Amino acid sequence: MSNTTSNPVVDIHTHMYPPSYISLLSNRTSVPYIHQPSDPKADPRLIILDSDDDPSRPKSSRGRPVDSTYSSFNKKREFMKVHGITCSVISLANPWLDFLEPESALRTAVGINDDLERACSENNASAEYSDLKLYAFGSLPLSAPAKDIVSEIQRLKTLPHVKGVIMGTTGLGKGLDDPALDDIYAALSSTKTIVFLHPHYGLPAEAFGGPSVVARYGHVLPLAMGFPLETTIAVSRMYLAGVFDRHPKLEFLLAHSGGTLPFLAGRIESCVAHEREFIANGGQTQGPQRSIWDVLHSNLYLDAVIYGQPGLKAALEAAGSVDRIMFGTDHPFFPPLGDEEGAKWLSVESNKGVIGDSFPNDEEARRKVLGGNAVRVLGLDL
Amino acid sequence: MSNTTSNPVVDIHTHMYPPSYISLLSNRTSVPYIHQPSDPKADPRLIILDSDDDPSRPKSSRGRPVDSTYSSFNKKREFMKVHGITCSVISLANPWLDFLEPESALRTAVGINDDLERACSENNASAEYSDLKLYAFGSLPLSAPAKDIVSEIQRLKTLPHVKGVIMGTTGLGKGLDDPALDDIYAALSSTKTIVFLHPHYGLPAEAFGGPSVVARYGHVLPLAMGFPLETTIAVSRMYLAGVFDRHPKLEFLLAHSGGTLPFLAGRIESCVAHEREFIANGGQTQGPQRSIWDVLHSNLYLDAVIYGQPGLKAALEAAGSVDRIMFGTDHPFFPPLGDEEGAKWLSVESNKGVIGDSFPNDEEARRKVLGGNAVRVLGLDL
Repeated sequence: MSNTTSNPVVDIHTHMYPPSYISLLSNRTSVPYIHQPSDPKADPRLIILDSDDDPSRPKSSRGRPVDSTYSSFNKKREFMKVHGITCSVISLANPWLDFLEPESALRTAVGINDDLERACSENNASAEYSDLKLYAFGSLPLSAPAKDIVSEIQRLKTLPHVKGVIMGTTGLGKGLDDPALDDIYAALSSTKTIVFLHPHYGLPAEAFGGPSVVARYGHVLPLAMGFPLETTIAVSRMYLAGVFDRHPKLEFLLAHSGGTLPFLAGRIESCVAHEREFIANGGQTQGPQRSIWDVLHSNLYLDAVIYGQPGLKAALEAAGSVDRIMFGTDHPFFPPLGDEEGAKWLSVESNKGVIGDSFPNDEEARRKVLGGNAVRVLGLDL
Repeated sequence: MSNTTSNPVVDIHTHMYPPSYISLLSNRTSVPYIHQPSDPKADPRLIILDSDDDPSRPKSSRGRPVDSTYSSFNKKREFMKVHGITCSVISLANPWLDFLEPESALRTAVGINDDLERACSENNASAEYSDLKLYAFGSLPLSAPAKDIVSEIQRLKTLPHVKGVIMGTTGLGKGLDDPALDDIYAALSSTKTIVFLHPHYGLPAEAFGGPSVVARYGHVLPLAMGFPLETTIAVSRMYLAGVFDRHPKLEFLLAHSGGTLPFLAGRIESCVAHEREFIANGGQTQGPQRSIWDVLHSNLYLDAVIYGQPGLKAALEAAGSVDRIMFGTDHPFFPPLGDEEGAKWLSVESNKGVIGDSFPNDEEARRKVLGGNAVRVLGLDL
C-alpha cells in the first residue's frame, strides 16, 4: 500500500489559473484581465481589481505578475512533491467566473470546468504521477440566469474529479443572504455539493483608514484582516438571514479557518440573543432559529490555513470536532520572498507545524486534519 | 479578611455616562449630543453617530434611550451586587472626549476625570459600600494640543483612583499609527499608564454590504463583527508602524479579547513575513522589528469579554499566559431583553461561565482572570 493511500496529505486550499482561464482573461481588456507584455521574457500581468487598473501607469506594471506557478500543472506537482502533498483539490483563484456576460457565462463555465476535469483525469491516470493525485472544485456561472447555475451544479456532479465548487462572497451580486440564492442553495443541498467559500478583496479601503493607509503596509491589511473578515461577514449574513434554517443540509468549507468566525461565534450568538430586531412579534426580522454553534457543527468545515496555534485551537474548539478541519496551503500565494528553487515554503511549513504542535501525541488527529477528513468529506479516491 | 480582599471579582470593562458627562452632552446640539425630551417620563436620547441624527425623525426618537443604568452609581453598585462583582474599573462609554473643541478640551477633561475620581473616592470611603470598590480609567482630551494631552496624562497619575486611560481607535484623528502620537505614547510609557483600547463604530457600513444590509440585522453586524475588527485593525496598524518598537514599554488592554487579534496573529505574522514592501533596502516601509507574539506577550492585555470558549482559548494561547487576561462585563450594554428586576444578565453569566469552563480544575487561574490579574496589573487597593 503506497503512502498516498495509507496516509494521504491532501491540500484542499490550492489555486490555479489554468491555461483556459489565462486565455479567457487574456482576451479581455477590462478588469479582470491579463496583459501580455510585448517583452517575451516578462511575465503576463494580472489585473483583478479596479484599483490595480491605474490608467496613469503602463499596463506592463499594473496588477501583479502571473508566472508559471499560477498556470502550470507541472509547477503544482513540483510544489506538492517538495511538501509531501499527495493530493491537491485545485480551485480557480479569484475572481473566478463572477464577471462573465450572462448569455455566455454557462458555456464558458462548462469549458473551464471541463478543462480542469480533464487535467485531473489525465494526471490521475498517468503512471508517472501515481503518488500525486489531483481533484478540483468547479466554478459556477453566477452571472447567468438561475437555471443555468443550477444546470451547471447538476452537471458538475457527473464529473468524477470535481468534488465541490468554489464561491466568493458576493453571490449573485448582493451577498450570500440574497433570497434569490435559495434555488442555488437548494440545488447545492440536493446534489450534496460542498461550497468552498473564499474572500476576494470585499472590504473597502475605508475599513482600514483609506487607500493611503492601506498602501503604507503593502498587502498586509487587506490580506491579513480584510480577507478573514469578509468571509466572516458573508457567512454570518447567511446565518442571520436563516439560510441554514431553510437549507439544513447545506455544507460550506470556509477558507482561512473560517476567517474569524471561530473566535467571534460567541459574540455573534450574544449579539443575536440581545437584538430587539429579532424578538418574536416585535422585530422586523425573524432571527436565526439555530445556534451558530449548531451550524458550525453541522454545516461548516474549516481549512487549517491559519498560521498560528491560537487560531487552530479556536477553530478546532468551534468546529466541535477534529473531523471538520482540513489542511490547505493557499498555493501559489505567499511564496518565499527569496528564490531558492525547490526549497520548502515558510507559509506551508508554518501551517503544517501548527497542526503537528496542536496534536503532539495524537497521530490519528494529525492524520485526519492532514488528509483523512478531506478524503472522507469530499469522497476522494486515493 | 473579607471576600473582597481575598478573592476579588474585578470588572475592568464597565462603562458609564456619569452625570458630568450627561450634562456636557446635554448642552450640545450636534453629534454627539443628548436630547432631553419634554415628556419628563421619557428617557433622554443619546445621539452618538451621524447616522443616528436623521433630521426626518423627531429628536425624541433619534439615537438610543439613556436610562439611569448609564449614569447612576447606585445602578452600577446594584449590578455589581447581583453578579458578585467586588470592584469595577469604570470608563466613560464612547465617544469619550474625542469631539471637544481644542481650546476647552483639557479643561473639560480635567472636570470629567476629577468627577470620576471623586465618585470612586467617596464610594471607597463609605462604610455602606465596603464590599463594592470603584476605580476608573480616565479620558484624554485628544483634540487638544499635544502638550495638553501629556499634561493630563501626568495629572491623572496623581489621582489615586484613576488606574489608566480609555482610548478609541482614531487617536488624534488619523489612527493609532499616526507619528504625531509618539509624544503621547512616550508620556503613557514613562508614566506607566495602561491604555484600555475600545472600538466605536469605526467601520463604514460598506464593509458589511451597505446601510440597508446593516439595518436588516439590527446592531448585530457592526457590534459582533465591526467592533472586533476595528480594534484588530487599530492595534495592527500600531504594530506595523513600529510603535511597539519605538515604545517597548507601552501597555494596552484590548477590549473584547483583542477583537480578533488572537485568532489572526499568525496570519498577520505570515503576511508580514511575505510582504515585499518590508524587505530591507527594497521596500518603502521598514516592517515591524518584533514578532506580533512578542508584542502580545509583553505589551498587550486582553479582557475576557468574548462569550465563547473557542475565543477565550485563543486569547489565552495568544496572550501566552493566564496572567494577561481580565474579566469584564461591558455593562450597561447587552442588558437582558426582558424586565426582570434584579435578575442576572445573560451576557455577564455567559462570560463568567466561559471562564469557569476553561479552567475546571484550576481555581488559581480562575481567580487570576476574575480579579487577581486586574489587582496586580492596575495596582488596585482592595
